[in-house]
Amino acid sequence: MELWFSDYHTEDVKLDIKIEKQLFGADTDFQRIDVFESKEFGRFISCDGTIVFSEKDEFVYDEMIVHVPMAVHPHVRKVLVIGGGDGGVARELTHYDEIEEIDVVETDHVFIDVCRDYFPDNACGLDDPRVTVFNANGLRFLRTKVDEYDLIISDAIDPLGHAAGLFTKEFYGNCFRALKEDGIMVYQHGSPFYDEDEETCRAMHRKASHSFPISRVYQAHIPTCPSGYWLFGFASKKYHPLKDFDAKKWLERGIKTWYYSEHLHKGAFMLPKYVEDMLEEEER
Amino acid sequence: MELWFSDYHTEDVKLDIKIEKQLFGADTDFQRIDVFESKEFGRFISCDGTIVFSEKDEFVYDEMIVHVPMAVHPHVRKVLVIGGGDGGVARELTHYDEIEEIDVVETDHVFIDVCRDYFPDNACGLDDPRVTVFNANGLRFLRTKVDEYDLIISDAIDPLGHAAGLFTKEFYGNCFRALKEDGIMVYQHGSPFYDEDEETCRAMHRKASHSFPISRVYQAHIPTCPSGYWLFGFASKKYHPLKDFDAKKWLERGIKTWYYSEHLHKGAFMLPKYVEDMLEEEER
Repeated sequence: MELWFSDYHTEDVKLDIKIEKQLFGADTDFQRIDVFESKEFGRFISCDGTIVFSEKDEFVYDEMIVHVPMAVHPHVRKVLVIGGGDGGVARELTHYDEIEEIDVVETDHVFIDVCRDYFPDNACGLDDPRVTVFNANGLRFLRTKVDEYDLIISDAIDPLGHAAGLFTKEFYGNCFRALKEDGIMVYQHGSPFYDEDEETCRAMHRKASHSFPISRVYQAHIPTCPSGYWLFGFASKKYHPLKDFDAKKWLERGIKTWYYSEHLHKGAFMLPKYVEDMLEEEER
Repeated sequence: MELWFSDYHTEDVKLDIKIEKQLFGADTDFQRIDVFESKEFGRFISCDGTIVFSEKDEFVYDEMIVHVPMAVHPHVRKVLVIGGGDGGVARELTHYDEIEEIDVVETDHVFIDVCRDYFPDNACGLDDPRVTVFNANGLRFLRTKVDEYDLIISDAIDPLGHAAGLFTKEFYGNCFRALKEDGIMVYQHGSPFYDEDEETCRAMHRKASHSFPISRVYQAHIPTCPSGYWLFGFASKKYHPLKDFDAKKWLERGIKTWYYSEHLHKGAFMLPKYVEDMLEEEER
């Protein structure tokens, strides 16, 4: 038997992964969730047919969305993670002793349960005593918060599905309000390569750069993402991702990483010309 | 009708591209060559079932393999391109007025002819009066050359196919000998992500770093490459890719690029931790 999972990156391009076994599959109130075992990417989970993460490449995403802001902000005490029900982001955050509270807000409780069952190396992040998991809508949760967080990580994946509200102008405004006066927000910025993703990418940068005084974009290579290339947004009230980056302090922490490094931190902000030009157009 | 081209990145992962039409297909003395028309990647050419380049992403590869060394070496007059029968590398080289001679050595003359017929925007690079195309074996051609080139670009793609000789220790030694005393060699370094590619990647760096006093690796995001991630080797007798990088001089040339920029030049050498660690192990 040959069983292939197809992740459609566009209508005309797909990444196919050979499957050894399906481990889980169900329709929740919010989405279709499936878990598969594969040789090349280990276990992976998909929502509505799109891969959310795999055992083999989640380290890239989770390290890059956490260590970049953490190596810039000098004193993070309270963090909000919107989405992130798998626990990978929380896991990376728990490496930092100075963090006192981590609020994880996940809409779909089935997603949390499935990750607890099938991805213990991610879900362990939710077991840290500093973590509180809220089973709630991220946007609604956010509306009640003012001047509360040092760091907000928007870990929501799908700008067109049930998480669509997380990519509106209101969302960026609410994040700004929920952050302390020197807060940082990082978010998934999508993949800029295929034509059909370009407008989403432009719109996100437009909204963020009009809501925050500092708004930069950084990159990573994530094989299961469309075209293998993913962008992150760094929106900040005070700290600049490169000028306020404290490499020495970060190195002294001795956190073990596989993707992130003090060199890569800087290189991640040096973008291809076509991406730079696209983003600059939206800053006007 | 739905027609899909499958590029196997490993036995268990493939990139599938929807095809509108096959334009060419033939077995040559060296390989199987096919040309397809697709919506997402435009026209693309494959050799033995692996995509060599597509209209939509060749700019990344051709810019990165040419502009990085050209922005470092202060006076390139004579260049050798091994492989590169499509003309894309030659095309980028012709932007530099100080280059006097470009020797392109391609084993398979059918590949050149097919690119002339189907990829005129690449093949135009071969029409520059400074370009001489040699229909010859790259390794054999190289053996006759001593102290002749300022820059050698190894544009050969397939370390296991008919171009295998281009990835031996002898090859790096012959490049060293064919280069002038301050010469630079750049070469395809493969994709480091999948386990089965790792050993090739390690072996290349081992050979280059034992043959040249300066040996660094840089990266680019190329969607049609395995996992979307590609490495290049920069092996040099004298010039360091960052310390001797002259951004000001390069910018003054006014060369139009879509991927390469003076910022990206630096960022391209800042590699993920797992790649850095792997390369360092081979330098010992």
